[in-house]
Amino acid sequence: MAKKVAFFGLGNMGGPMAANLIKAGFEVCAFDLVPASVQKAVEDGCTAAANEKEAIAGADFVISMLPNGAIAEALYIDGAGLLDLVEPSALLIDCSTVAASSSRRIGEEAKNRNIRAIDAPVSGGVAGAEGATLAFMCGGEATDVEAAKEVLKHMGANIFHAGPAGAGQVAKACNNMLLAVHMIGTAEALQLGVDNGLDPKALSEIMLKSSGCNWSLEKYNPYPGVMEGVPASREYSGGFMVKLMQKDLGLAMEAALASKSATPMGALANNLYNLYATMSDEDNADLDFSSIQRFFD
Amino acid sequence: MAKKVAFFGLGNMGGPMAANLIKAGFEVCAFDLVPASVQKAVEDGCTAAANEKEAIAGADFVISMLPNGAIAEALYIDGAGLLDLVEPSALLIDCSTVAASSSRRIGEEAKNRNIRAIDAPVSGGVAGAEGATLAFMCGGEATDVEAAKEVLKHMGANIFHAGPAGAGQVAKACNNMLLAVHMIGTAEALQLGVDNGLDPKALSEIMLKSSGCNWSLEKYNPYPGVMEGVPASREYSGGFMVKLMQKDLGLAMEAALASKSATPMGALANNLYNLYATMSDEDNADLDFSSIQRFFD
Amino acid sequence: MAKKVAFFGLGNMGGPMAANLIKAGFEVCAFDLVPASVQKAVEDGCTAAANEKEAIAGADFVISMLPNGAIAEALYIDGAGLLDLVEPSALLIDCSTVAASSSRRIGEEAKNRNIRAIDAPVSGGVAGAEGATLAFMCGGEATDVEAAKEVLKHMGANIFHAGPAGAGQVAKACNNMLLAVHMIGTAEALQLGVDNGLDPKALSEIMLKSSGCNWSLEKYNPYPGVMEGVPASREYSGGFMVKLMQKDLGLAMEAALASKSATPMGALANNLYNLYATMSDEDNADLDFSSIQRFFD
Amino acid sequence: MAKKVAFFGLGNMGGPMAANLIKAGFEVCAFDLVPASVQKAVEDGCTAAANEKEAIAGADFVISMLPNGAIAEALYIDGAGLLDLVEPSALLIDCSTVAASSSRRIGEEAKNRNIRAIDAPVSGGVAGAEGATLAFMCGGEATDVEAAKEVLKHMGANIFHAGPAGAGQVAKACNNMLLAVHMIGTAEALQLGVDNGLDPKALSEIMLKSSGCNWSLEKYNPYPGVMEGVPASREYSGGFMVKLMQKDLGLAMEAALASKSATPMGALANNLYNLYATMSDEDNADLDFSSIQRFFD
Repeated sequence: MAKKVAFFGLGNMGGPMAANLIKAGFEVCAFDLVPASVQKAVEDGCTAAANEKEAIAGADFVISMLPNGAIAEALYIDGAGLLDLVEPSALLIDCSTVAASSSRRIGEEAKNRNIRAIDAPVSGGVAGAEGATLAFMCGGEATDVEAAKEVLKHMGANIFHAGPAGAGQVAKACNNMLLAVHMIGTAEALQLGVDNGLDPKALSEIMLKSSGCNWSLEKYNPYPGVMEGVPASREYSGGFMVKLMQKDLGLAMEAALASKSATPMGALANNLYNLYATMSDEDNADLDFSSIQRFFD
Repeated sequence: MAKKVAFFGLGNMGGPMAANLIKAGFEVCAFDLVPASVQKAVEDGCTAAANEKEAIAGADFVISMLPNGAIAEALYIDGAGLLDLVEPSALLIDCSTVAASSSRRIGEEAKNRNIRAIDAPVSGGVAGAEGATLAFMCGGEATDVEAAKEVLKHMGANIFHAGPAGAGQVAKACNNMLLAVHMIGTAEALQLGVDNGLDPKALSEIMLKSSGCNWSLEKYNPYPGVMEGVPASREYSGGFMVKLMQKDLGLAMEAALASKSATPMGALANNLYNLYATMSDEDNADLDFSSIQRFFD
Repeated sequence: MAKKVAFFGLGNMGGPMAANLIKAGFEVCAFDLVPASVQKAVEDGCTAAANEKEAIAGADFVISMLPNGAIAEALYIDGAGLLDLVEPSALLIDCSTVAASSSRRIGEEAKNRNIRAIDAPVSGGVAGAEGATLAFMCGGEATDVEAAKEVLKHMGANIFHAGPAGAGQVAKACNNMLLAVHMIGTAEALQLGVDNGLDPKALSEIMLKSSGCNWSLEKYNPYPGVMEGVPASREYSGGFMVKLMQKDLGLAMEAALASKSATPMGALANNLYNLYATMSDEDNADLDFSSIQRFFD
Repeated sequence: MAKKVAFFGLGNMGGPMAANLIKAGFEVCAFDLVPASVQKAVEDGCTAAANEKEAIAGADFVISMLPNGAIAEALYIDGAGLLDLVEPSALLIDCSTVAASSSRRIGEEAKNRNIRAIDAPVSGGVAGAEGATLAFMCGGEATDVEAAKEVLKHMGANIFHAGPAGAGQVAKACNNMLLAVHMIGTAEALQLGVDNGLDPKALSEIMLKSSGCNWSLEKYNPYPGVMEGVPASREYSGGFMVKLMQKDLGLAMEAALASKSATPMGALANNLYNLYATMSDEDNADLDFSSIQRFFD
């Protein structure tokens, strides 16, 4: 008999994730406050739930993909209070990207009730959600992360166990902070080369084979005309939007403030993206994050 | 008959480079102001020259490996004035890491005299010099870079043509600036993770397979205990010293000033290394550059 | 008849503040979890309260000076819940330095109950508390700030109304962020001059009369030997400790994150203080904040 | 009998400076490559010289106000070679803002020839030049600076002796770097306050009376509508242009590189101005430097 999944948050990311579970043979009961999202989920084969409580009836897995920590905490604790309503056997998987402190709170409250719960924020974007190639960075008990693979493997290609509750969020924040740092560093280095008469393609090739090599340079060259099939080759449309990078950098800064960690490069990256996003008369927040290259023209 | 090379600067880098040319069958005439360096070169099979002029007599190639631009300019133009003394058929290869403006001046003065000259700064350090695995980043005419390969290939594994005179210096400065940026970014990200309860090894593995991936993380993990055989596993001894990174960042900053390029991340990296190098009661300048991890403890 | 003040938090700051109110003729009922603090307050003329509720009985003013927002929120809302217990006529004055969001929450909850409350963080340190020369930066209704002057004027010399609830905290965060920025800028400029052969006293005098002039240079010169009677002249003992500046910068960063404001210089100042505070084998967190000069030696 | 001044460089700054010397009774012989500048100088009462040599004939003072160090070095050493041509009794005063290394070279070459020479860069802009209220920051022998006051006092209000040759340049670079740092810090702090609901005028008044106080806040508030008569009140026209601040920050960075001084805040200020100056579709380089406020909107 098909296992049952309660799925909360069926937007650009959650929608295709739930659809992939349907394809894999799960029975998915969907809940979202946006009628159009529910409608689309039903077209994909989900059942619509009238409310949160109905959605989780008999669920083996509860998966949530929500926009921020306040909404996630409301769903599980403060508002709908699912932690007090789910089957004791259910496994809760919050795929939302939120502050580590939010995930730790949900994890702790779940533990107090003997409910299994993990945080599992993703990377890979809409394309990853649609193609089931997401990476999941999981925080929680190792056995629970292992058990979660039964569903996660149908939505993603890589499943990492980062550590205890909240560790998934921390790992994602660290990774994306580092990504922002080398993306801006790459953009600066390429422009410095161009300003000194070098061809950006020749310089990219040299750095790719040298110690400057990094993901931004190798998979996502920000300089227009150097690499095909990346946002830089289509005027920075598509891809991972500046505003999403701002959100992730904000979460990294929040974590750094809480642990009093020094992150000078990360903080500068955060501020440069904030400045870039609101540059006068431009609307850069919706462009791909590699468009920071334009800042250095 | 063996081709003749005049080699200037037989220190930690130049010494083994010249030795590799001897092994490859070249006749090498060495000049250095430090007697011990000359002595060692002679033991390796070089001939010692009494002065600069004697060194270049009949040379097919003139190679220099000098500590800074003033010394290089003195050798070729202002002091010994080799540009006016070399055989018209000789090919000049300056492997020194100096300001692009220095290399451009030497290139221009050589061109005025119809002398072929390229800049060819290296990366790879002493180990690369000894093992003949250096990378050469060359600036100058394509045909001259091609011709230089006859000797360069015996001293290195990668030979890049970056662009016109000075472009080799620019490429190296860009690459090493980017290296410094992602090294510090990696150190910050790892410490942020550790401060939030993550294991540095687990976090490193996640970021290696994610968009945070970069050379520092993959080949040179700065966190002690994560990777074997790197400076971090031997208290940051050996490797690429902080003071050498400071020199390269200084050259990158000089290039950026000259072209009025904005390099906020590179400038911050430069300043963090300057602060770190002179931290009170420490002598960090001689440690490997990945020891910047300690700054974030 | 003497007006009655309930005073919460009688530490290094709150203690002398309460003592000044006693001197001004107020009846002060003190509460603190640390017995020694209560003991000292009683010696200064306060009455000791057995618990929070007893402290506020009949109070015209409730003043709190607490270490962080969680404790302040617990006192007024979540724990002791004073907002539900105080006399309707009492005026609540929270002098704690906390996040603006904390003050806004307390302000809003008070308003819902028709209780008058303002936030009034101070600057001036222990010396200001003892000498009754503190500056109060107040957030709340203008009439409430006006009414608060009846007590505040006996503890401080300047009382500013910054805006609505939380604005006192924002004003203090902005001011102290700017202070950190020009303190570090001043330290850098002085060291740059010294490194280039200038006398720090001569350079200070020039900048004091020029556009570089700022409070750090004028009142608090960080370079040893330039100004008498400042922390730099006594090895950075006394004064405003690095760890307190770190706290204030953390609050400024929190405010900036919440409003998505770009503060590149403030963020760098925050990170430089974090790096400086934990420099290996040093214990800089307890030194005066002008000791950041040592970072640039 | 009137003393004679040879004046080189009669542009926006040099022109009114020379005119003030005429008013003070000096005989001024002017030289400039731009005919219109010479023409204007003649209208102001100067004599036009056909060449550099003619200009200095019988001169008691030689004053230069040139755009960069290469031009200054050409005038005194490499090109016109005035150091070999001037009267032994003449006092040379270079008011150009150039690298300290340039001024040191001119100072040294002059000393070798027993010629008295000082560097005396100015602050105060065109208005200061016209109103004879410039500040001169002088480097050189104390007796020479003293002797220079005979002319400088007619062109400026403050004459500082910063130290040996080049020290005038260093003092100006330090001062303007610090100015840039607190200008940007002030802009950030004001915007952070505004973003959190504060009135920029109220916040300015609080910080003016607090430890955040600085010249930018007091004399040159960058937030529109807060202060009258400053560039911010006239859309940032007039004042000290962004491109001039970029030049001065570049010189400060050059000095810092030469002395390996860490200037993290100054370097960030330099980069923020570089980014701001070339923000796409804007032409910010000609606006007043306080317009950096717009970057934070």
